[in-house]
Amino acid sequence: MTNSQDLFARFLNSCDTIIPEDARGRLSGSKPLTIKFGADPSAPDLHLGHYVVLKQLRRLQDLGHHVQFIIGDFTAMIGDPTGKSDTRPALSQDDVDRNAASYQDQVFRVLNPDQTTVYYNSDWLRPLSSQDMIRLASHYNVARMLERDDFHKRYQSGQSIRVHEFLYPLLQGYDSVHLKSDVEIGGTDQTFNLLMGRHLQKEYGLPHQQAIITCPILEGLDGVKKMSKSLNNHIGIHDAPNDMFGKVMSIPDPLIIPYFTYLTDVSSDELADLKQQLADGKNPKHLKEALGVAIVSQFHDESVANNCVTEFNQVFANKEQPTDIPPIDVANETTRLDQLMMAHKLMGSKKEIHRLIKQGAVSIDGESVQDPFYSFTPQDGSILKVGKRRFYQFSVTTSSAA
Amino acid sequence: MTNSQDLFARFLNSCDTIIPEDARGRLSGSKPLTIKFGADPSAPDLHLGHYVVLKQLRRLQDLGHHVQFIIGDFTAMIGDPTGKSDTRPALSQDDVDRNAASYQDQVFRVLNPDQTTVYYNSDWLRPLSSQDMIRLASHYNVARMLERDDFHKRYQSGQSIRVHEFLYPLLQGYDSVHLKSDVEIGGTDQTFNLLMGRHLQKEYGLPHQQAIITCPILEGLDGVKKMSKSLNNHIGIHDAPNDMFGKVMSIPDPLIIPYFTYLTDVSSDELADLKQQLADGKNPKHLKEALGVAIVSQFHDESVANNCVTEFNQVFANKEQPTDIPPIDVANETTRLDQLMMAHKLMGSKKEIHRLIKQGAVSIDGESVQDPFYSFTPQDGSILKVGKRRFYQFSVTTSSAA
Repeated sequence: MTNSQDLFARFLNSCDTIIPEDARGRLSGSKPLTIKFGADPSAPDLHLGHYVVLKQLRRLQDLGHHVQFIIGDFTAMIGDPTGKSDTRPALSQDDVDRNAASYQDQVFRVLNPDQTTVYYNSDWLRPLSSQDMIRLASHYNVARMLERDDFHKRYQSGQSIRVHEFLYPLLQGYDSVHLKSDVEIGGTDQTFNLLMGRHLQKEYGLPHQQAIITCPILEGLDGVKKMSKSLNNHIGIHDAPNDMFGKVMSIPDPLIIPYFTYLTDVSSDELADLKQQLADGKNPKHLKEALGVAIVSQFHDESVANNCVTEFNQVFANKEQPTDIPPIDVANETTRLDQLMMAHKLMGSKKEIHRLIKQGAVSIDGESVQDPFYSFTPQDGSILKVGKRRFYQFSVTTSSAA
Repeated sequence: MTNSQDLFARFLNSCDTIIPEDARGRLSGSKPLTIKFGADPSAPDLHLGHYVVLKQLRRLQDLGHHVQFIIGDFTAMIGDPTGKSDTRPALSQDDVDRNAASYQDQVFRVLNPDQTTVYYNSDWLRPLSSQDMIRLASHYNVARMLERDDFHKRYQSGQSIRVHEFLYPLLQGYDSVHLKSDVEIGGTDQTFNLLMGRHLQKEYGLPHQQAIITCPILEGLDGVKKMSKSLNNHIGIHDAPNDMFGKVMSIPDPLIIPYFTYLTDVSSDELADLKQQLADGKNPKHLKEALGVAIVSQFHDESVANNCVTEFNQVFANKEQPTDIPPIDVANETTRLDQLMMAHKLMGSKKEIHRLIKQGAVSIDGESVQDPFYSFTPQDGSILKVGKRRFYQFSVTTSSAA
């Protein structure tokens, strides 16, 4: 396989859907396409969830295409005009400028600046007249709008949807009309918005409609929910190397292959090999180490990444672990960790325990526990770590029951 | 009762609802209020259905208030921007100017120009920015919008509603914000729109919210459906006196009291007296004559109105009726008029017959038939009139059946 064939194969591995199917030919072809990507300047702290799409954009650049990077400052500055929603605070021009700068700083760790044009959509959305807005709104149907997942749920459950919220998908779609984008890319949760751009290009009589590419949504450290800052299950692009590496080491095993696929540059062959290793019972810890190095080395020197392994193992072998660890008497029987912690008053409430476990802050012998209802049989001498500094050692007594 | 008390009583007789209740005090008080009325320049041919509201406006002027007469040219010039609907053709500036002139010509037959200011809402709606439009749309809820009668029906039945249609009620409501109207008046079918103006005034922080007044919807000549040009059941303000009078004579009896109430200036006492006359079995024809004179004399000299009675009776007694009328042999039994007309080939098709009957163009002894399935027992010598010039005389033969 040539280099660009391999690149395209890796690109396809990180795609969920491409519409229309025949866009694959254009994407792998030699004619440069414009690839639209819209960024929300109200949430400028990027994490590896965003990185999935950014890597795809970089691959498309390496295939010769050009990225239209749009800062969605127009709607961000309006926010929720009623002021009734905390989730959409209006940003000032200063906020937007600061966030946009931070965004670009992070984004250009991945993207090639020479193949990227940064746009602010207020440049064309602010000058739209009231008549332009009516015309824009005339190009979509209320019933279709209410089929959008979040609108549908809110409408069905009686939660308020304000009429202007229907204008936001139209406005971001209009960006595709204005920029005549060839392709738009986003997470699968953006499918509705991406299709809107495609739809509006047709409604406005453009000769071609953009293709759309969706990428899978990355699950966070909990292995269950979408990676997001608000769920605190994320790995930030700005995270220190050791933190980034340590968090990778804490992921549940089922995330190993997806993380390799979407966050590194392993080839299809390597991916198949990794799957085989897991199937053959290879210790997942070693695969996670390789994954951690592969991820960290994309943001830092490879030597820094390799150091992370050493430091991690030192910490979780013995270092920083006090020599005088208080023992906990436990029975030699299957036990729920949260109940054990409650019984020994290690935390104030079960709620706190669950929160801590979900945050990955509870480990046994250096392995982070993720499931708040984790059940296990304690081994004599094992080390239970709670938070950053508290260590306990199991002292197993044979059960005397009955 | 003083003159203004009587005026106010007549005003209340023609109201359906006043919100809030305590607005009555302000309406009958001495402080002049601004009364908003929105006109649609895409339908400038006024009929007595519109006249109900115009009379109310005139009464409010006579009570000392001032009318804000708004030509809704902004949305009329946009129409349906998709061009997919025939019901909302976009009007040119010329169309709007011509229609607005025609509208005013008709309206000032009723309103006092000295107490009327004419506005074009494009003056303040066209300059709204895209941001203003988003702000406006943020002040209303999608679910509430979908409760509007027409939207609700269309949504439930799967008919398309375009998003911009949600902007139109908001824009006409914004007129109330801009003009700081004290009161808005319209038909009961406008209740949603009138309340929107009231709602938006509050949302935009105005110190007072407009009161709203709804007037009953006038039924057309068929006695069933709302009077409208498209149903051809209307009496136009521009109609010639004889036509106007003749149409009044053709209304079904149950419309006599509503027409007196909403279209003339009879007092509450007179109204009670008219109801008593009907209850006592007075021939409705005489009441219709009085009604016709009362209506026509509002648009023409009273002498012209009185002449209508004479001419009407002459025409429907004998005049213009040819002396040599062809006979139709009919049986002395209950018969459907349309079937009788088909049997004697008076028209080409049953469809044509039904259309003619619905137009009120078929009469028996001068009484217009309205029901296309009208059933009756022909009387010997009765005159059947079809259209303007064709007369037939029933010649009854005793049925020889069986």
